[in-house]
Amino acid sequence: MTVEQQPRVTISAIAREAGVSVPTVSRVLNGRSDVSPATRNRVEHLLRVHGYKRRVARTQEKASLIDLVFNDLDSPWAVEILRGVEDVAHSEYVGVVVSAIHRRSASARQWMRNLRERASDGVILVTSTLDSPLQEELRRLSIPMVVVDPAGVPTLDAPTVGATNWAGGLAATEHLISLGHRRIGFIAGPPQLRCSRARLDGYRAGLESAGIEMADELVRPGNFYHESGFVGASVLIDLPAPPTAIFAASDQMAFGVYEAVRKRGLRVPDDLSVVGFDDLPEARWFSPPLTTVRQPLAEMGGLAARTVLRMTRGEEVENPRIELATELLIRESAAPLR
Amino acid sequence: MTVEQQPRVTISAIAREAGVSVPTVSRVLNGRSDVSPATRNRVEHLLRVHGYKRRVARTQEKASLIDLVFNDLDSPWAVEILRGVEDVAHSEYVGVVVSAIHRRSASARQWMRNLRERASDGVILVTSTLDSPLQEELRRLSIPMVVVDPAGVPTLDAPTVGATNWAGGLAATEHLISLGHRRIGFIAGPPQLRCSRARLDGYRAGLESAGIEMADELVRPGNFYHESGFVGASVLIDLPAPPTAIFAASDQMAFGVYEAVRKRGLRVPDDLSVVGFDDLPEARWFSPPLTTVRQPLAEMGGLAARTVLRMTRGEEVENPRIELATELLIRESAAPLR
Repeated sequence: MTVEQQPRVTISAIAREAGVSVPTVSRVLNGRSDVSPATRNRVEHLLRVHGYKRRVARTQEKASLIDLVFNDLDSPWAVEILRGVEDVAHSEYVGVVVSAIHRRSASARQWMRNLRERASDGVILVTSTLDSPLQEELRRLSIPMVVVDPAGVPTLDAPTVGATNWAGGLAATEHLISLGHRRIGFIAGPPQLRCSRARLDGYRAGLESAGIEMADELVRPGNFYHESGFVGASVLIDLPAPPTAIFAASDQMAFGVYEAVRKRGLRVPDDLSVVGFDDLPEARWFSPPLTTVRQPLAEMGGLAARTVLRMTRGEEVENPRIELATELLIRESAAPLR
Repeated sequence: MTVEQQPRVTISAIAREAGVSVPTVSRVLNGRSDVSPATRNRVEHLLRVHGYKRRVARTQEKASLIDLVFNDLDSPWAVEILRGVEDVAHSEYVGVVVSAIHRRSASARQWMRNLRERASDGVILVTSTLDSPLQEELRRLSIPMVVVDPAGVPTLDAPTVGATNWAGGLAATEHLISLGHRRIGFIAGPPQLRCSRARLDGYRAGLESAGIEMADELVRPGNFYHESGFVGASVLIDLPAPPTAIFAASDQMAFGVYEAVRKRGLRVPDDLSVVGFDDLPEARWFSPPLTTVRQPLAEMGGLAARTVLRMTRGEEVENPRIELATELLIRESAAPLR
């Protein structure tokens, strides 16, 4: 086991050993004066012995900052996550520095340099794929870090906030089955992302529990973007026995399905039912409004912000792997089988 | 004339008076060593005499920050502007702190406090309506500031970056006229915003130059949001002599028009042509893809960032009122009159 992988000692362990409460340890860490000298000495001794990495309380010297890092800012859900992060940070007098690293390691390295220079207090990574040297560097800086939607970054040793993708895939599929559909197409996300696999598995579980065998020709590859939904749906509609409903693993792909249906002079949901995944703000404006699985993106951002701020104060993160519940929103794009 | 309103002396005026080049003055301001002592003394003397407010060159001590402030983060174009700002800032090693002030003055005051504490180097306000005391406070802090889309904040004494709203309104209307439409409905934006008025005037100019009189019943109020487009289009479609085309002053309202058309069992563009304004990312995914007037939001953000960074270096802003060109993007939602 390398040094970096050693579990950090927690505040509550220190409190137990010192025979004091967790808030008392926090008070010592934050340099508060309402702790007796004897207690302070005992706690500080234990913090030293266990190599507890205390972050300097910097609120006195300058306003706090946290960094929110996206791969790209081209996704409409970026602003949803940002909204949740900003809301929490703003109310705690913390500034949110937003960056995009564009999946280029040069860009990521530059971000890392800036991060160091501005002495950010914490980092929220959104489905980021930092390469290994950068992950190492972040660990060495020992800046508190939280990952939102851990799609394929299980190597990062940080708390994660995700959504219940499997349960969402199941709910979407069960909804279509309850409307009488049995030939249900699926357009998948990138296979290397954990969330894609979970949605596909939820779809399969929904079919199986209704005694429907998954047909390989009804599952099409996709990349979460519009075009792949259009292509996938076009293939499905042109099958000798086309599906009567399509579950797309992202809203953007569902919008591509709409367009494939329209191009053939057909209508949603009269000729084909459609369910998406995400609940982007525009999903409810689509025509017809999209039935979809809501990912609580703003809440995920808010929880990530609260978690990273807790870490900057040296507090313990009780649950380092949280999935917030997804929710099926029934609108007008899925109708009973005729 | 109060002190705050006195025009600040510019670098180029200092350069002229000192008989040196503008870059030389910049070098002095930035504390660079490649300036002769005599020149440095002369320039520094003039800077003092004219009360030039030099911002401390802080890149040595900490990474630079600029603040990007929205009213709310609920608009899909927020992320477009952010993308442009982040791109420029990132390449200049500057962090972008994103805030939303939620149109509440308590929230704005808190933002102002945070701004002061984190010693931000510059501010980009996006169509913000800061109340007068806060505007005064910003002026007193004398932090370089740029306003994006000066919709109704002409009182702020800062450079602005906008789009050619009038020309865009004209182009949209002329396009529909070129397709044979003569009864063209218009759904307006909030009347108190300058950009709304400019789009309406462009619409009127387009009609007039084609010899078409503007019919009051074809102009409906809106607020840029989806619902008002739906309501406005519903009223227009139900007129005894309904329009054959509708120009909505925002993409979100255009999406509302789509829904009103669908609810009546009609189709875009077969039964009604639609043109929007903005070119949100989802406009091209709509079914049918939306013909719209593109606002170069990312470019506007990028230009605002370059301008505010120039100001932080004490450089002169040559053109304090810039409108970037809008562009009509012809997709599939507007068709020849049948």
